[in-house]
Amino acid sequence: MANRNYNSIPTQEEPSVNEIPAKPKFFEQKTKKHRAIAAVVVSVAAALLVTSAAFLFTKEEPVVHEPAKRNVIMMISDGFGPASETFARQYYQWHEKLAPQAAMLPLDEIHVGHSRTQSSSSLVTDSAAGATAFACALKSYNGAIGVDPEKRPCGTVLESAKLHHDMLTGLVVTSRVTHATPASFSAHVAWRDWEPLIAEHQIGYTPLGRTVDLMFGGGSCEFLPNVTESNEISCRADQRDLFQEAKDNFGWTVHRTRKEFDAIDTHHAHLPLMTVFTPQHMSYEIDRKPAIEPALHEMTEKALDILLHASKEADKGFFLMIEGSRIDMAAHSNDAATHVHEILEYHRTVELVKEFVRANPDTVVISTSDHETGGLTVGRQVGSDYPEYKWNPEVIQRVTNSSEALAGMWYKATVAEAATTKFLKDTLVADGLGVDDATKEELDRILQWKDSGKSFEVLITYFADIVSRRALIGFTTWGHTAVDVNLYAYGPGTERLRGSHENIEIGDFIVDFLGLDLDDITKRLNADDLLAIKAQDPEDYAQAMSNHQRFND
Amino acid sequence: MANRNYNSIPTQEEPSVNEIPAKPKFFEQKTKKHRAIAAVVVSVAAALLVTSAAFLFTKEEPVVHEPAKRNVIMMISDGFGPASETFARQYYQWHEKLAPQAAMLPLDEIHVGHSRTQSSSSLVTDSAAGATAFACALKSYNGAIGVDPEKRPCGTVLESAKLHHDMLTGLVVTSRVTHATPASFSAHVAWRDWEPLIAEHQIGYTPLGRTVDLMFGGGSCEFLPNVTESNEISCRADQRDLFQEAKDNFGWTVHRTRKEFDAIDTHHAHLPLMTVFTPQHMSYEIDRKPAIEPALHEMTEKALDILLHASKEADKGFFLMIEGSRIDMAAHSNDAATHVHEILEYHRTVELVKEFVRANPDTVVISTSDHETGGLTVGRQVGSDYPEYKWNPEVIQRVTNSSEALAGMWYKATVAEAATTKFLKDTLVADGLGVDDATKEELDRILQWKDSGKSFEVLITYFADIVSRRALIGFTTWGHTAVDVNLYAYGPGTERLRGSHENIEIGDFIVDFLGLDLDDITKRLNADDLLAIKAQDPEDYAQAMSNHQRFND
Repeated sequence: MANRNYNSIPTQEEPSVNEIPAKPKFFEQKTKKHRAIAAVVVSVAAALLVTSAAFLFTKEEPVVHEPAKRNVIMMISDGFGPASETFARQYYQWHEKLAPQAAMLPLDEIHVGHSRTQSSSSLVTDSAAGATAFACALKSYNGAIGVDPEKRPCGTVLESAKLHHDMLTGLVVTSRVTHATPASFSAHVAWRDWEPLIAEHQIGYTPLGRTVDLMFGGGSCEFLPNVTESNEISCRADQRDLFQEAKDNFGWTVHRTRKEFDAIDTHHAHLPLMTVFTPQHMSYEIDRKPAIEPALHEMTEKALDILLHASKEADKGFFLMIEGSRIDMAAHSNDAATHVHEILEYHRTVELVKEFVRANPDTVVISTSDHETGGLTVGRQVGSDYPEYKWNPEVIQRVTNSSEALAGMWYKATVAEAATTKFLKDTLVADGLGVDDATKEELDRILQWKDSGKSFEVLITYFADIVSRRALIGFTTWGHTAVDVNLYAYGPGTERLRGSHENIEIGDFIVDFLGLDLDDITKRLNADDLLAIKAQDPEDYAQAMSNHQRFND
Repeated sequence: MANRNYNSIPTQEEPSVNEIPAKPKFFEQKTKKHRAIAAVVVSVAAALLVTSAAFLFTKEEPVVHEPAKRNVIMMISDGFGPASETFARQYYQWHEKLAPQAAMLPLDEIHVGHSRTQSSSSLVTDSAAGATAFACALKSYNGAIGVDPEKRPCGTVLESAKLHHDMLTGLVVTSRVTHATPASFSAHVAWRDWEPLIAEHQIGYTPLGRTVDLMFGGGSCEFLPNVTESNEISCRADQRDLFQEAKDNFGWTVHRTRKEFDAIDTHHAHLPLMTVFTPQHMSYEIDRKPAIEPALHEMTEKALDILLHASKEADKGFFLMIEGSRIDMAAHSNDAATHVHEILEYHRTVELVKEFVRANPDTVVISTSDHETGGLTVGRQVGSDYPEYKWNPEVIQRVTNSSEALAGMWYKATVAEAATTKFLKDTLVADGLGVDDATKEELDRILQWKDSGKSFEVLITYFADIVSRRALIGFTTWGHTAVDVNLYAYGPGTERLRGSHENIEIGDFIVDFLGLDLDDITKRLNADDLLAIKAQDPEDYAQAMSNHQRFND
C-alpha cells in the first residue's frame, strides 16, 4: 500500500536556512473582516434565537437560528494522531511559558471524541481510503479515490452539495491538489497514484461535469503538458495542458503565483478559480518563503472570504475542505520539528475557521485526521538504560529547517562536489538543525549516503533522527499506524459527533446536515461507462506514472 | 523518576503455560445479581423521573432522579493510552470476526474526551503524580503520594467522602494495594517507594484515623513482619505485623485467600475488610490461576455488592477506586499480548460497572488513565524497508503466557542448570509465545542473558519483542509518554467531563458531585506534625527499602 518513491530525487527548489517564528502566530492572528461580519450576524440572529436543549451543554456553542443556508467546513489534519496534539500543545506551552491549565490549543477547545480509522482492506488505513470514508461515507480499500471496494465510483458530499443544492465547493490544501485527500472528494479513480487523471476529473471531465469551484494548493506538474519546449515540470505522460483546457472548456480562472493570489478581489472573485503555487507539494511551514507561497491560514482566509461573498449573492451555502496535508509528510520523514510547525500552522487555521463559524451560525466545522503517521510518541528511550520521564522541547525550538530541505541541500552539494564535512556540520547540522554535538556516527552516515545507494527519503530521516533522539520524540515507522484519531467539531448539530465514531459517520453527519443524496450521485457516476472503465483499469494510466515524481504519500 | 529495580529477581511463583481464553469474556459476563437489582430500581426510579435537558443527548444515559445518596466509581486503567484502546478493539474485532462498525468495546460507548496528564515536575508524569491529580485535584511531582509539590499532605476525595459524608470507601486493584495509584487516595508520603509506610496509613495510622473500608489486591509483603521464623516474604524493615495491628487497633477483617474471599457474605460483610491475595502484585490475567486469584471483574463485582448493601443500610453512598494496575506493567515490559489481555479484563470490569450504574442512577463511573506507557503503536516498521500498512492480530492470539512468567521460568531453569536450547525453543518460545520461527539471534540473547549481567526486566523484554516484532506492534520506551489519555464517563452530570481536560479536573468533578471539602482535610492532615515529618523525611524509611522487592512501577 505504500507508494513512496524511495529512489527519487527532489525537484522542488530547496529553501534556504531560515528562522523559526519567535512566537506561534495563532494568538496574534486577527481576522478583522470576520469580526465585523460577526457583529452584524449576531444582532440579526438574536431576534431569531431559538433555545434548544441540544446546545445547552456544548462549549462555546454559537447562536442558533433557522439557517437560510448552511456551510460545512471539513478540516483534515493528515497524519495527525493523539500524540501529535499533545506534542504541539506541550511545545506551545513550553515556548510561551504557560501554566499547564492555561495551555489549550484551538482544537482542544472543540474536542468532541475520536474517529476509528481502519479501511475495508486493512486495520491500518492510508489517506485515500481515509478521505473516501469522509467523502463517500463508506469504507473502501487503501488506495481508493472516491471509489467503493469494487472500484465503482461513489458519490461524494462535495458533488451532492454542488448538484443537489447548487452550493459552492472548495478545496484548500498544502499538498498537490491532486493528492489523495482532496482527490477523494472530487475524483474517482481506482488507485491514488493516477494523479494526472485525478486532475482531469477535478477540472470538470466527469459525467457530472465540473463540481469544484475553488482550489488552492500545489501540484501544477499534474496539469502541465509533457513537452520538451517547456521549462516546467510535468508529471503527465501526455501533451495535454489541463490549465488551458480548464479555462477553455470549463471557464476556470487559473492563477499560478502569490502575486495573482494576493490580487484576487474576494468580494467579486470569478469562479471557478484555482491557484496552483508550486510544481509539487507546497513548502513545509518551517521552510516557507512568504513571497512565493501563502500559509494554510492565508489560503483559508481568502477562500472563506470568496465563498462567503459568492454564496451570499447566490443565496446558497458552501462546502469547503481544508487539509493540513504535510503534517503527515513530516511524520513520514520522522521529522519532529517540521511536524510540530505544520501542526501549529493548522491550529492558526482552526482559530480563524472557528471565528468564521462564530460569525456565521449556519456553519459547522469538523476537524479530524484520516490516520496517524510515524508512530510518534512524546517520550522515547535512547539506549538500554531505563528512561527518565521527560522530553526536551528546547531541542525542537532550535531547528530552523525541515530535514527534507537540509537533505536537498546536501544532495545538491554532493552533485556539485561541495559535500564537505564542514558544510554538513556547520551549515546543515549546526545552523539547520540547531545541533552542535552531532556524533561521528550521525555525521558519517550522511557523508556516506551518496555511496550507500540508499534513497533520498532515507537521507531525510538521517537528519531528522539527529533532532528527535535529543528531543526524546519517538517514532516506530515511516508509515501509518491504526490509533484512533481525535475528532473536533463546532457549530449547530455537532453534539451528534460526540464520543467514539467510525470515520464514515463523519460523512453521514455531513449528508444529514446538508440534506445530501450520495446514492443519486453514485448512480449518475456509474451511468458513464468510460469513467467506470477508467476507474478500474490501471493500464490506461501506467504510462502516465512513468515519469511521475512524488514523495511522502 | 524511574524506580524499577532492574537487578532484582522475581520472588513470585511463576505460573505454568496455560491457554488463552477462546473468547473474550466480557460478552459472556452475566451479572445476574445486578440485573435483578436493576429491575427493582428502575421501577422505583420511574416514579421519580425528572426530565433534564442535560441528558437528552448523552448516549445510554441512565434514568435520572433526585438521589438520596450518591456513589462514585473511579476506574483507572494504568498506563493505557489511546493506541492501547485501538489495539484491544481491533484485536477483539478480529478475534470475534466482527465488522468494523460492530466493533465497540464497553469503554468506547462512554467515550467523552481526554485527560491531559503532565505533572508539576515533568511533561511526562508517573503514576504517583497521576493518581494524586485525581485524588487531591492538584498537580504534584513525579513520585508524590497524596502530597503537594512542597511535600505537604493533601486531602483526598476518598478521605473527604469518608469524613464529611460518612460514605463507604474502597480500593480494588491488581497491584500491591500499597502501589502508587491506590496509595495516592489513601496515604500521604513524599516518595512512592515507601510502601511499608503507605500500608500503615491505609490501615488507619493517620491523623484522620482509618478512612478505607475495603481493599482487594496484592502486596502482603508490605504488611508482614521481617522475621526469620516466617515463610512469607516481607518488604518491611521492621518486625511489625500490620495485618495483626489492623485487626487489633482498627477492627479490620483480614483475608488472605481466594477461599476466604469466595466465602464473604456480601449482604452482611464486616467492614473494614481487606483481602490481600499475593505477596507482591497479583498475576497478569493471561497467567492467572483462578483457584488462587480472582480476576479484576470478580473483585469488582464482590466489592460493589458489599458496598451497595452496606451503604444501603447506612443510607450513605460510597467511593470506590478500581485500578487495572498491570495494564501499565505489561506495557513497561513491552509485552503486547499480556497488555491486551489486561485491557480486555479491564473492559469486562467496565461492562459490569456500567450495568451497576444503570441499576443505580445515583452513581457515576469515570474511567481514565494516569498516563500512557511504552510508547505503544499499532503498526511498526521492522527493518529499513518502507512498511506495509497492517499489523497481525493472529500473532497476539497465539501467546499463552506473559513474558514475565516465561522469563521467570527461564531464570529458574538457569538456576537449576536446565536452561537448554530445547527448553527455550520448545517450551517457552513455541508453547509460551506461540512462535515457531524464532531466529538464532533472538534465541541467543536469551541463552546468553545469564552471563550478560543484564537485569531480569531486560530478559522479559527479550521474550516480549519476539512477539511484538511479528505482530508489528511498536514500542519506543520502557517508560511513560506524554500523550493525552482517553476519558470515559457515564452517569448523571458527567456531561461536564466532555472534551479536553487536565487530569486534576477529574478530581474537581468528584469534589463537586459529592460536595466534598479537600481543604478541610488538608488542614486536618497538616495539623499532625508527625505525619508531615514522615511525609518529608526519606531517612526514616531508608532501611525499609533495603530489602524491598518490587518491579514494574
